[in-house]
Amino acid sequence: MAHRVGIVGASGYGGAELVRLLEAHPQLDLEVVAAHAQAGQPVASLYPNLPGDRVFDDVDLGRLTGLDLVFLATPHGPSLQLGAALRKAGTRVVDLSGAYRLAARDFSRWYGEEHPAPELTPDPGQPGAAGDGDDTAQRAVYGLPELFREQISGAGFVANPGCYPSAALLALAPIADRLQPGSVIIDGKSGTSGAGRAVADRLHFSHVHADLTAYAAPAHRHTGEIETWLPGDLGAVSFTPHLIPMSRGLLTTAYGTVADGTSAADVQAALHAAYDDEPFVHVLAAGTFPHTKALAGSNGAHVSAVLDERVGRVVVTCAIDNLGKGAAGQALQNANLMLGLEETTALTSLGVYP
Amino acid sequence: MAHRVGIVGASGYGGAELVRLLEAHPQLDLEVVAAHAQAGQPVASLYPNLPGDRVFDDVDLGRLTGLDLVFLATPHGPSLQLGAALRKAGTRVVDLSGAYRLAARDFSRWYGEEHPAPELTPDPGQPGAAGDGDDTAQRAVYGLPELFREQISGAGFVANPGCYPSAALLALAPIADRLQPGSVIIDGKSGTSGAGRAVADRLHFSHVHADLTAYAAPAHRHTGEIETWLPGDLGAVSFTPHLIPMSRGLLTTAYGTVADGTSAADVQAALHAAYDDEPFVHVLAAGTFPHTKALAGSNGAHVSAVLDERVGRVVVTCAIDNLGKGAAGQALQNANLMLGLEETTALTSLGVYP
Amino acid sequence: MAHRVGIVGASGYGGAELVRLLEAHPQLDLEVVAAHAQAGQPVASLYPNLPGDRVFDDVDLGRLTGLDLVFLATPHGPSLQLGAALRKAGTRVVDLSGAYRLAARDFSRWYGEEHPAPELTPDPGQPGAAGDGDDTAQRAVYGLPELFREQISGAGFVANPGCYPSAALLALAPIADRLQPGSVIIDGKSGTSGAGRAVADRLHFSHVHADLTAYAAPAHRHTGEIETWLPGDLGAVSFTPHLIPMSRGLLTTAYGTVADGTSAADVQAALHAAYDDEPFVHVLAAGTFPHTKALAGSNGAHVSAVLDERVGRVVVTCAIDNLGKGAAGQALQNANLMLGLEETTALTSLGVYP
Amino acid sequence: MAHRVGIVGASGYGGAELVRLLEAHPQLDLEVVAAHAQAGQPVASLYPNLPGDRVFDDVDLGRLTGLDLVFLATPHGPSLQLGAALRKAGTRVVDLSGAYRLAARDFSRWYGEEHPAPELTPDPGQPGAAGDGDDTAQRAVYGLPELFREQISGAGFVANPGCYPSAALLALAPIADRLQPGSVIIDGKSGTSGAGRAVADRLHFSHVHADLTAYAAPAHRHTGEIETWLPGDLGAVSFTPHLIPMSRGLLTTAYGTVADGTSAADVQAALHAAYDDEPFVHVLAAGTFPHTKALAGSNGAHVSAVLDERVGRVVVTCAIDNLGKGAAGQALQNANLMLGLEETTALTSLGVYP
Repeated sequence: MAHRVGIVGASGYGGAELVRLLEAHPQLDLEVVAAHAQAGQPVASLYPNLPGDRVFDDVDLGRLTGLDLVFLATPHGPSLQLGAALRKAGTRVVDLSGAYRLAARDFSRWYGEEHPAPELTPDPGQPGAAGDGDDTAQRAVYGLPELFREQISGAGFVANPGCYPSAALLALAPIADRLQPGSVIIDGKSGTSGAGRAVADRLHFSHVHADLTAYAAPAHRHTGEIETWLPGDLGAVSFTPHLIPMSRGLLTTAYGTVADGTSAADVQAALHAAYDDEPFVHVLAAGTFPHTKALAGSNGAHVSAVLDERVGRVVVTCAIDNLGKGAAGQALQNANLMLGLEETTALTSLGVYP
Repeated sequence: MAHRVGIVGASGYGGAELVRLLEAHPQLDLEVVAAHAQAGQPVASLYPNLPGDRVFDDVDLGRLTGLDLVFLATPHGPSLQLGAALRKAGTRVVDLSGAYRLAARDFSRWYGEEHPAPELTPDPGQPGAAGDGDDTAQRAVYGLPELFREQISGAGFVANPGCYPSAALLALAPIADRLQPGSVIIDGKSGTSGAGRAVADRLHFSHVHADLTAYAAPAHRHTGEIETWLPGDLGAVSFTPHLIPMSRGLLTTAYGTVADGTSAADVQAALHAAYDDEPFVHVLAAGTFPHTKALAGSNGAHVSAVLDERVGRVVVTCAIDNLGKGAAGQALQNANLMLGLEETTALTSLGVYP
Repeated sequence: MAHRVGIVGASGYGGAELVRLLEAHPQLDLEVVAAHAQAGQPVASLYPNLPGDRVFDDVDLGRLTGLDLVFLATPHGPSLQLGAALRKAGTRVVDLSGAYRLAARDFSRWYGEEHPAPELTPDPGQPGAAGDGDDTAQRAVYGLPELFREQISGAGFVANPGCYPSAALLALAPIADRLQPGSVIIDGKSGTSGAGRAVADRLHFSHVHADLTAYAAPAHRHTGEIETWLPGDLGAVSFTPHLIPMSRGLLTTAYGTVADGTSAADVQAALHAAYDDEPFVHVLAAGTFPHTKALAGSNGAHVSAVLDERVGRVVVTCAIDNLGKGAAGQALQNANLMLGLEETTALTSLGVYP
Repeated sequence: MAHRVGIVGASGYGGAELVRLLEAHPQLDLEVVAAHAQAGQPVASLYPNLPGDRVFDDVDLGRLTGLDLVFLATPHGPSLQLGAALRKAGTRVVDLSGAYRLAARDFSRWYGEEHPAPELTPDPGQPGAAGDGDDTAQRAVYGLPELFREQISGAGFVANPGCYPSAALLALAPIADRLQPGSVIIDGKSGTSGAGRAVADRLHFSHVHADLTAYAAPAHRHTGEIETWLPGDLGAVSFTPHLIPMSRGLLTTAYGTVADGTSAADVQAALHAAYDDEPFVHVLAAGTFPHTKALAGSNGAHVSAVLDERVGRVVVTCAIDNLGKGAAGQALQNANLMLGLEETTALTSLGVYP
């Protein structure tokens, strides 16, 4: 029997990508496609890839709480409220925003506001730990299945990782125990869809085309998210994001000083041990580098590491589709786990190439 | 029970797109992935979106004839030979090249060589007509399902249309009976993947990026293909292709003088009558225009028409993914029909957007 | 001695390109860089290629009338008023908008409003004819130097052509006397900078990247401009513009039925006769096609023709930089002529390639 | 009186950019445009932006030694020989390759071959020092004018910096004395023109478009060049280049741990002190980041720094046009200095934008 699901914030890129994926899901019925400001408009008027009769719904909490699971593809502001309200009603939630990815104290530091529901924020020391009360009071689980699959399975509330953290954590987690604290630098590069659909001078085609720039350094919010969920105690990391003249695709180039005695083979072995059984993460042969386009439209991730013995640093690159494994794909992977479905349902690891 | 299929020419873009699609097909087993020059190499070494253990096979006619259906993604030269040989052995064939799309006389005119198997070339006057002898001698059917679905269903030999003709014919066929002979002009625009994988100075990224140019006019081979399969007797058409700085996507802008008394509503009605029941072709609202990216990675086609009453001309635009509806997607649609499967299996009409 | 010039509308792409060009002009002093909405802001805050201390001025008619020449890079609304006011004061004007490109009657038809200064609109039958009164009442001259150099030289008021008409007229004018009335079709393709700097969902990088679409057909205003200035009496033309995923560059592909007996050599000879002495227009060898990127940042134009004898049509392609020969470059070429300077000063025909 | 100059390797992107720049130089006559493999072909057949009658010359050492200055835009192999031969004859040389950028010992380490003319390689300890004998035996000077202007002025032999080192050194040199040894990491990003014109599968438009990848880490030859010319004794650096889907433009993001007590103001002051009087290098306001497109077609460089006090690291970004300040533009800047001309002649710092 199909589960009934809905999306709030369906007019954004993450939401619309979920619509595309869910149209092909055999066990999930997409009943609500809500977008407050676009309510009543045809989905096709914003997304020419989604022709047909669907019309954006308004955000109706009563209707949403009647569903089995709701994807929140809203900014963190609305997600803070909607996440808590839906959980109170017992509805499963996958939140794609940054509202519930950090402990309350870290949230206020990186987002500049108090968290209104600290009791639902995750506990990095005990990811997946139940809350004080019943199931609906369970803290959010950080939804990176390769790290927290067990906690996600059957959970009621999942905070879907940010795009940069998804790639950075997949790159670094398997070798975190070999890195020196304070040595981690992450140079991030993303296509423009990661910046959302809202029009802006800096996202005008004429400006981005054939252009390259850094932005938001050194205080991008994803920095705190990476620091929170990187295993071990590696301290503060440097993170500098860049805007790449392409729509989809994200690559993180992560640098870290390795502990003495670490060999290239050790690094390669750690990556293979972590990912060889994973359905969506592929470790490339040493000496080759991931291509973002190989993942376009998919939920896959490609990881590669080189050890620069001359300087004692490892360089790990990870490529994903920022709207796939970096957002909607991963959200569906989480939903599949939460609902006890086959994790890979309606997802692919094969990108549209070339 | 699954049908056993193979691809020859799997190292090209059309072949590799078929690999991607077939990996997800529940009723077709992809047993042979042949590429003569790359035999023995991992598929992933050429296609980073297809990681895994697949290795290109050599072209082994004996092995191929044992399959239920073979996709020929080879240039027209090898296809001329392989098509005839496979048909002689009774193996079903979908040929993605131009080898069997034209009557023999037209083939020699547009390709500059005699056709070695004229008895297998299609008969435009009787598309799908059986040949003189048994089933294996049946002439190739031109594989545009929206025009020749009946003939394709159950056929043994299908000539898959070229990318430009696929779009141009979908645009013009429904209104062909309203156009004046000699008035048709088709301005074609394609991404670079339509030009194939072979490296060439004119396909160097540094040259194509931010550039736009026409090419091959006025003698592109697809001109003859469009003239052959355009319904009615519209005479010679003008066709000018252009190279667009994008990898996938194809748009044809077709111009034709309409018969007196033709209204915009007539044109719109003709398009809707033709396509409203089609799973992959969508007619846009008048006044809107198709976007190629809405079809990226899909087998869909979007069609739109405007009537310029001031000059008495209709302008019909059609967008497809040149590797989808313009090549591999359509080839799989044809294979599904030939094998009696659900026509839409493992295909989507929803593109990866944005 | 240097002439003192100013720009109104300097915050738009055409205006900013004029700033770039004028910074290197040895005989023109750029004294006013006006942009009403951005007055007081540094130019560099909008144009990172123009660092330095320049700040946008407000629009001050008194200050402008004290200059030797003013470039109006404003939309046609402000240009209608500013053009008339500046001319009344005797200031030379190059207007880059569509305000003064058409006869008054045609203006109202294509722009949907009455022309407030019909006595200043050009007379296509007598381009460059003096007005009824003194010099300041002279009608605007259509500023395509290759057609109207004599009239532009020394003129006080020049209407700078639109981007599409610049390319279409350069392509067709030399062979207009060989074309059949009613047979002309122009398929236009432009980069996004032609659509201006104002942010818009349809110009969002994520939407334009890897996408291709037609727009505005069949009623784009440039249609009337092409019909007005095409030599001879060729009647109505079809014009369909397309948005190409690149920032700069414009190509028109023009189709026309030739008079009986016209040979490919005739066409080629006509083009060479028209342009071999021109400093900015280059006729390509038959069989080669212009590349827009070859003109990037320049005031050049490349033209090429093929005669398709099978269908009796000529196909003429013309590439320009829409902000160069299609806007600011041509405006400066006109200003040089108006002020009696060397026509090519501070202009180049060599694009930045690759 | 004009100086007579020539280019060897004019069929490559660096060489062709020099042709474009030299066509507009009022004091340099471009007499030889040599390209061995293309000798006899029109320049326009490879570079559509350079129409006209120029034909590639063959490489004729006798003819070259008669010139006042020769630009070697050849790969390092030919440059090793040609550089030494031309210097022996007393001809001034600007070599754009890596042949003479490193001390002989470092050359053999990074290029894997013995240097055939170690006596002409630069001495990093004494840049610009005269050689043992006469002027023609002078060691090559590393041609970064912002660091070595005095040595370049009047020199006979200049090794033009690599594209990545140009940007990395401009970014780091002013603050090198505040960085901790061993802490420097450079994440480089370049458009495809930096990889040259030779066709290659990895440079096929269909593969690079909408794609992003790292390459060549950790042993790219520019690593050694950066280490050699970075002021002070900062030890080995990490350098990872990435291929960006654009033709021109290069950005380096450089990370380094600062000495205790270094403030953001210190960093900003050091950059301004270094560059406020430079004609081609512009320091951006703190908090803004350079855009590569702002420099397209120019010889400019934009530099910006942020201090991340939380982690004690500075992040300095520098954008250039890899064919401008990263190759041909800088080569002409060096030639101007060598010949005693105004340094900025025929160069601009204003890019073609947008």
